[in-house]
Amino acid sequence: MKSKTAWYLLLVVLLFTASFASANHRESFYTEKCKDRCLDLPHSEERTRQRCEERCEKEEGNKQKKNPLVFGLESFLDRVRSEHGRVSSLKNFYKLSPLLLGIANYHLAILEVHPLTFVMPTHLDADSVFYVVDGVGAISILHEGGRESHTLRQGDILRVWAGSIIYLINKSKNQKLVIANLLRPVGNPSNVQVFHSAGRDAAESYYRSFSIEIMEAALNTPRYRLLPFLEKHKREVIVKAPEEKIKAMARHSSKSESGTWPFTRTKKPFNLLDKKPTHQNNRGQLFEADGNDYEQLKDVNARISFANITSGSMEAPFFNTRATEISIVVKGSGYVEIICPHVSQKDPGEKGEGYGQEDDEEEMQQKPKYRRVSSVLSVGTVFVSPPGHPTAIVASPEQSVHVLCFEVGAENNEKIFVAGKNNILNEMEEEAKEIAFDVPSRVADEILGAQAAEVFVAGPKKEQEARESEVAATAGRTFDSFLHFAAAF
Amino acid sequence: MKSKTAWYLLLVVLLFTASFASANHRESFYTEKCKDRCLDLPHSEERTRQRCEERCEKEEGNKQKKNPLVFGLESFLDRVRSEHGRVSSLKNFYKLSPLLLGIANYHLAILEVHPLTFVMPTHLDADSVFYVVDGVGAISILHEGGRESHTLRQGDILRVWAGSIIYLINKSKNQKLVIANLLRPVGNPSNVQVFHSAGRDAAESYYRSFSIEIMEAALNTPRYRLLPFLEKHKREVIVKAPEEKIKAMARHSSKSESGTWPFTRTKKPFNLLDKKPTHQNNRGQLFEADGNDYEQLKDVNARISFANITSGSMEAPFFNTRATEISIVVKGSGYVEIICPHVSQKDPGEKGEGYGQEDDEEEMQQKPKYRRVSSVLSVGTVFVSPPGHPTAIVASPEQSVHVLCFEVGAENNEKIFVAGKNNILNEMEEEAKEIAFDVPSRVADEILGAQAAEVFVAGPKKEQEARESEVAATAGRTFDSFLHFAAAF
Amino acid sequence: MKSKTAWYLLLVVLLFTASFASANHRESFYTEKCKDRCLDLPHSEERTRQRCEERCEKEEGNKQKKNPLVFGLESFLDRVRSEHGRVSSLKNFYKLSPLLLGIANYHLAILEVHPLTFVMPTHLDADSVFYVVDGVGAISILHEGGRESHTLRQGDILRVWAGSIIYLINKSKNQKLVIANLLRPVGNPSNVQVFHSAGRDAAESYYRSFSIEIMEAALNTPRYRLLPFLEKHKREVIVKAPEEKIKAMARHSSKSESGTWPFTRTKKPFNLLDKKPTHQNNRGQLFEADGNDYEQLKDVNARISFANITSGSMEAPFFNTRATEISIVVKGSGYVEIICPHVSQKDPGEKGEGYGQEDDEEEMQQKPKYRRVSSVLSVGTVFVSPPGHPTAIVASPEQSVHVLCFEVGAENNEKIFVAGKNNILNEMEEEAKEIAFDVPSRVADEILGAQAAEVFVAGPKKEQEARESEVAATAGRTFDSFLHFAAAF
Repeated sequence: MKSKTAWYLLLVVLLFTASFASANHRESFYTEKCKDRCLDLPHSEERTRQRCEERCEKEEGNKQKKNPLVFGLESFLDRVRSEHGRVSSLKNFYKLSPLLLGIANYHLAILEVHPLTFVMPTHLDADSVFYVVDGVGAISILHEGGRESHTLRQGDILRVWAGSIIYLINKSKNQKLVIANLLRPVGNPSNVQVFHSAGRDAAESYYRSFSIEIMEAALNTPRYRLLPFLEKHKREVIVKAPEEKIKAMARHSSKSESGTWPFTRTKKPFNLLDKKPTHQNNRGQLFEADGNDYEQLKDVNARISFANITSGSMEAPFFNTRATEISIVVKGSGYVEIICPHVSQKDPGEKGEGYGQEDDEEEMQQKPKYRRVSSVLSVGTVFVSPPGHPTAIVASPEQSVHVLCFEVGAENNEKIFVAGKNNILNEMEEEAKEIAFDVPSRVADEILGAQAAEVFVAGPKKEQEARESEVAATAGRTFDSFLHFAAAF
Repeated sequence: MKSKTAWYLLLVVLLFTASFASANHRESFYTEKCKDRCLDLPHSEERTRQRCEERCEKEEGNKQKKNPLVFGLESFLDRVRSEHGRVSSLKNFYKLSPLLLGIANYHLAILEVHPLTFVMPTHLDADSVFYVVDGVGAISILHEGGRESHTLRQGDILRVWAGSIIYLINKSKNQKLVIANLLRPVGNPSNVQVFHSAGRDAAESYYRSFSIEIMEAALNTPRYRLLPFLEKHKREVIVKAPEEKIKAMARHSSKSESGTWPFTRTKKPFNLLDKKPTHQNNRGQLFEADGNDYEQLKDVNARISFANITSGSMEAPFFNTRATEISIVVKGSGYVEIICPHVSQKDPGEKGEGYGQEDDEEEMQQKPKYRRVSSVLSVGTVFVSPPGHPTAIVASPEQSVHVLCFEVGAENNEKIFVAGKNNILNEMEEEAKEIAFDVPSRVADEILGAQAAEVFVAGPKKEQEARESEVAATAGRTFDSFLHFAAAF
Repeated sequence: MKSKTAWYLLLVVLLFTASFASANHRESFYTEKCKDRCLDLPHSEERTRQRCEERCEKEEGNKQKKNPLVFGLESFLDRVRSEHGRVSSLKNFYKLSPLLLGIANYHLAILEVHPLTFVMPTHLDADSVFYVVDGVGAISILHEGGRESHTLRQGDILRVWAGSIIYLINKSKNQKLVIANLLRPVGNPSNVQVFHSAGRDAAESYYRSFSIEIMEAALNTPRYRLLPFLEKHKREVIVKAPEEKIKAMARHSSKSESGTWPFTRTKKPFNLLDKKPTHQNNRGQLFEADGNDYEQLKDVNARISFANITSGSMEAPFFNTRATEISIVVKGSGYVEIICPHVSQKDPGEKGEGYGQEDDEEEMQQKPKYRRVSSVLSVGTVFVSPPGHPTAIVASPEQSVHVLCFEVGAENNEKIFVAGKNNILNEMEEEAKEIAFDVPSRVADEILGAQAAEVFVAGPKKEQEARESEVAATAGRTFDSFLHFAAAF
């Protein structure tokens, strides 16, 4: 595969950072692997090996700086963490990149709950959309005068309103429950606030935060009774629970789904993976849900899609007309390329190579340049395609990649493909093609029409074949092997 | 009128404040009272008394700095001030606290018009919602081809559209007309601009601001006639008017209300206090109006409520699911507690006590801590409850407190009580209660169910009684005693 | 076409400007003319002449600094420029003036295409509204499964959706095609990103920006065929095209308009100048189109109007209640006055004269002052009237002025005139007039009623006549004379 070389390089580069400074395990792992590979070089080439290692370190450094649209695990912060699970949230989009100002009031979080575990009653000052990535659980939502409970399983989408008090259980004895959340605050757009009804210390509950006088009066209970009650609150937000209690709660959730709670019908989760795929061929599957499938998505102006790209395949280059697509890799590995006309000046490391110097903003406006943002994907990588930005997603040659996408600003959005059988450029008339591409329209038609598949197409050729069709391997080759390691990780 | 006294008080305090450049009278008053109380301590305990006084000063200092959600009179600016009345507006919310970024495009102003006084024709670049706090007046709104006039009385809500030219009269011979305004600019969100059609100097009119050539041509009047006319404009925006003219204008307003103007029916004010209270018991009354009561509130996405909390009572801890509640005390005194998970790092004085150190933002995100914002309320105090933030409002033991609330972002908002008979936590199932509170569900039910009242409940016990029911006073008690003094103020 | 000359002029001025780095030609031209006039003064009055010249220079300096709402050609940036045309965009409004924060997510651009020229397929991450200022062209918009083409002529309004791939031709053999665009990004509000499907170098296409491996796979074409194809792409975004190809494309556009494309009916351009004027008299004409005329304007919350003000006339002082009016002079000359209550503190040069010192913001809030923003208008000048801000537009005595206006935030907007027969202040009742203007209501009625015309009225008198009707020229007169020169320009 030609791009494999390129991949190696990228890969190699990734590996270092963790062992230094604040230490992120995955990065040190990568860098280490990268350096291991340098050891394979003939001993005689000591100087080359040294350079190879330097490159590993340097690439690693670049990785952290250079992608204004791709974010690894180091861009997540733990909001809650205990031995029984955790909540991590991606840093504010607008702080990650000025290109993402348009989604500054959206936030992304991942909730991970260990088997037979309970998440304390909590409310947020944000609307949220849950997507169950993996596992089996149940959620309860409190209402004045009632409670609704729903079973949660892989592929479920559930919208939870701001201010709703919820609690969750992982019903499984051995499998984690993993939920991805898209959040939109209803108050201060730059932060999601979390309020726990119970629990203390690492996460104080508001019951314990009011003055004792207020709580005495509010609960009409003298402090000698109240204080022990408040002290008893669990120390953590995510706690292990006895199996029989989990079972009892799971029963409630399946009961209420069968109809005991009047709101259940309209508010219960929608399963994305039960829906017929929008596109499907031997190269991949695309599942999409919008406000027509699950009405509650309308209100948050979001759409959810899930792409399963088969190993060795890719999603053909496309762009969204209006939506910003926030993608998170939930399984497998691969890489992504996003074409980006404007790169923030704040981070000089973000400059493309080979496109010449980018000067000050005004200069840039006069001479727009594109830059290819290109990054390895592995589980947990987040990448963002702003509206209009052409994007291609490639699965690794060895394993398929599963990508969950939250499309923000979904109203009237269209997904436009600029390659494949449905390539929109095919719609140009003959004369326009000739002027635009400066070739006879026959040639343009041949090239724009050569791809018979649509949406999911064969990926860049595998290394073996690639070698046959080209003479020299480029520096980029290193990257692919890296993926193999990453996949095993 | 009872609230008149309160407004005199407000005035007195304001004037006092004005006479001390950097000092704030109200706070020094409190400190003084607090110290007086220290004198009650036995003379033998000199060291204790000293500490008591230090605490008073420290409380005072904290008071000034520590409340990112409570704003006293010092946070208001006079926009117009004459001997006949004034307009004060609260500083921009987002400048007052980063927590209030979500309501950065709303503004709050108070208009105060003396008896038999006229407010010059004016338009704003903001939509506004008027609430008549006190007094009797009339407002005229100009339209192309007509004019609508409405009588204004206590409890009236009126929406005035951006760009509408209005003028007002206070019809009373001896009572002030006091109006609270919620403003939302239609242009630049960070400022409300005021345009006077007449008046000069302190408030130039735009007629006088165009070049004389333009005005000559526009009004088709030579400058020798025009200049004296423009010079004649009153010097002030709020002017005394002859009683017979006020009376004539008042007659027009009541006439037009009886049907002469076609728009009157839909646009006339809605009286909040004429409506049946949403909640009412011997502890208090809650009046609420939303877009269903007065359609014009829909468009500004606001709701208005008015709480009358009886002396010695409180509004049980609650939060709004979506709305930010901007409250202003219009009568009486008391105190408020708001639980706030995130406190701006910019003001180190805002740190809670006893919750340990708050580090940088990322650290905070990892270990969310709650902080109790707690503040004395007196006439003119503004406090803001962002969505999700649990809040309790307590009337002083000696007098009831009247609180006017503008609820911004009212669409789909619900007010959730976390104590009282309608405590939402009662809806948790047995098993969840046991896990969350770590007590047998019977105990949790007893405590969560002990309060038989809802919405308005008995306030914290008076000091005397409190002493009987407990052995040792905690450090927190000091604050309580302090409140009793404040209440007497 | 008359406006063609005007646009040549614009071009000439632009090119000239470009050749002097820091100098601005237009201003120096004015200053020169201004100084020429000083030479007319009697030789004996050497001192006066000197002062006259100093005044010219000072005016010039003021001109550059003092108008927070008026922007000349120096505020535009070229985004694309070739020998066959160019795209210029006005700098971000909020960067031009803090007063314009309310329209920070709107942008203004001018597209200029030379005869028989083709603009490459392009999409933007912004919705846009096109207004054809001059010339004859055609636009093609690509859809999945089809293409719509429309002829474009003077007065045409067309809304183009974000993400739509479009290309344009200028059909004329000798006339430029000039289009004004109002843009609203759907992603990052502070920037409009441009994506070219073809073309390279100054404007790389995204086809060339993806890695070659990706493009090989996406187009299913080996690189030995692909690279030459990509290399062939034209170097520029705006390119000359053979006349026969232009003709063929023009035919397609008129055909599709006659019904071949199903969407044509609803999406085809709306011609503003074919509509009956909203106001018309011998002083001017006002054409207005909103969402009722062309439904696609609703969605972008904009309205378009076009005012033709006859030489020696003016549009009477008015304000918009909700909309911000972005105006661009497309022909002729004149001047504008806008009354502005708040002037940014950042630019001390923006202070009005004779209104005393403006202190810090809080001080200003306490004593609002108005300031007259007054500026000469010539082709290409942009001026902005925020909501509520009274504005008067005056044509020069020698030539009419044509002003194109994009009204942003048009929903529920009303245009209110504060002079003329429809002067809204006429609606005040007798008593209110007497109090407000402090004259007998008869006098107020006489003055407010003296102007018999509405909307378009006679402009300020010419200097000669003016002199007859007054005794002494005020200092303000100098500005007038200055205008006469400007008008001759």
